[in-house]
Amino acid sequence: MEFWFSEEQTPNVRFSIRVDRQLYSGKSEFQRIDVFESPEFGRFLTLDGYMMLTEKDEFIYHEMIVHVPMAVHPRVRDVLVIGAGDGGVIRELVRYPEIEHIDMVEIDPLVVEVCKKYLPKTACCLDDPRLSIHYADGLKFVRSPQERYDLIIVDSTDPFGPGEGLFTREFYGNCYKALRADGIMVNQHESPFYAEDAVACQRAHKRIVESFPISKVYQAHIPTYPSGHWLFGFASKKYHPLRDLDDTRWNLRGLHCKYYTTTLHKGAFYIPAYVEELLKDVE
Amino acid sequence: MEFWFSEEQTPNVRFSIRVDRQLYSGKSEFQRIDVFESPEFGRFLTLDGYMMLTEKDEFIYHEMIVHVPMAVHPRVRDVLVIGAGDGGVIRELVRYPEIEHIDMVEIDPLVVEVCKKYLPKTACCLDDPRLSIHYADGLKFVRSPQERYDLIIVDSTDPFGPGEGLFTREFYGNCYKALRADGIMVNQHESPFYAEDAVACQRAHKRIVESFPISKVYQAHIPTYPSGHWLFGFASKKYHPLRDLDDTRWNLRGLHCKYYTTTLHKGAFYIPAYVEELLKDVE
Repeated sequence: MEFWFSEEQTPNVRFSIRVDRQLYSGKSEFQRIDVFESPEFGRFLTLDGYMMLTEKDEFIYHEMIVHVPMAVHPRVRDVLVIGAGDGGVIRELVRYPEIEHIDMVEIDPLVVEVCKKYLPKTACCLDDPRLSIHYADGLKFVRSPQERYDLIIVDSTDPFGPGEGLFTREFYGNCYKALRADGIMVNQHESPFYAEDAVACQRAHKRIVESFPISKVYQAHIPTYPSGHWLFGFASKKYHPLRDLDDTRWNLRGLHCKYYTTTLHKGAFYIPAYVEELLKDVE
Repeated sequence: MEFWFSEEQTPNVRFSIRVDRQLYSGKSEFQRIDVFESPEFGRFLTLDGYMMLTEKDEFIYHEMIVHVPMAVHPRVRDVLVIGAGDGGVIRELVRYPEIEHIDMVEIDPLVVEVCKKYLPKTACCLDDPRLSIHYADGLKFVRSPQERYDLIIVDSTDPFGPGEGLFTREFYGNCYKALRADGIMVNQHESPFYAEDAVACQRAHKRIVESFPISKVYQAHIPTYPSGHWLFGFASKKYHPLRDLDDTRWNLRGLHCKYYTTTLHKGAFYIPAYVEELLKDVE
């Protein structure tokens, strides 16, 4: 039997994964949720048919969205995480003992429930005592807090559907306001390669540049995302992602990672010429 | 009408590209050769069904295999190129006026003929007066020359089929011998991500480490190759790819690239932790 999941990465490109079986399929108020088991990637989660994570390569995304800011900011106590219902961001964050509190704002309770049941490798730490989960719209949640967080991580879906509001000027402006005077915001920033993703990436960068004094973009190789070339945004009130990187302090922690190293951290900001130009066009 | 080309990147992963039309299909003594026209990637070339290049992203591979060694070696006069029938490597090399002679050794004359006709953007410079094309087996060709080249570029297919010999200890040893006392060899080094590619990558690294005193690996984002995370090998008798990089000299040339910059050059060698471990295991 041939049993395949296919994602249309663009109208003209399909990425297909052989599936052993579908573990879950359901529909929440917000989206369709599916979990599959596959020989190549282990289990994987899709929302509305779009790849969110696979057990084989999720470590790349989650390490890169968490350890890059954590190796720059000297003392993170309070963190706000938007999205991240699969738990991968939380798993990486709770490795830092100095973090006192994490507010996680996930719009869809069913994502958390499904991930706890079917994706225990990412959802392993959603019961951490430092974590408060709020089932709410991130766009609305972030309107109230003022200078309350050291780090905001925006682990959004793509800029359409439930994630749309997390790519707006209003949202980034409120994140700025919710951060302390030396706060950092990191977001998933789409890909520079396919035309539609590149436009989303440019638009997000333009809006972040307007909201933050320091705004840089860094990259990672994520094989199951369209083109495999994925970007993150590093927006900051005070710290520079390279000049304020403290390799020694981070390396003394002895955290073992599979993708992130403090050397790779630097290289991740050395982006290709065409991506530099794409971003410069809107700066 | 739905018309798609699919590559099995592993037995469990397929990458598919919508095709407008097939421009060429033929069989040489060595392999099946196809050229397609597609809305997303422009024209693309496959050998035995494996993706070799697309007009949209070939610049990444060709810039990275040529400009990295050229920005390190202070004076390249004689170059040996193995494979490269599509002409992309030659197009980048002939931008350097100090290169006096290029021997290109391509096993399959039909690849050159087809690329000249259907892929003029890569095959544009195959009539350069400094270029000699030899239709021969690279493995055999490299047995004779002694200290004749400053740079060898191994633009091979995968380590099975016609390209198999270009991943052997004998081949790398002969490349060493064919290089001058400060020569550099760069090769396409497979991908670290999918299991079978990772094994090929480890095996190649082990053999190159045994042949050259300096052997490093660098990476690029190549969306149409399996996983999008592709590696190159930098093997050298004298120059170190980072310590001997001369940014100023290279930047003064004023060569415009779409992917390569001397900053990205450094980052390309800052590889993920799991790739470092993969390579260290065989060093």
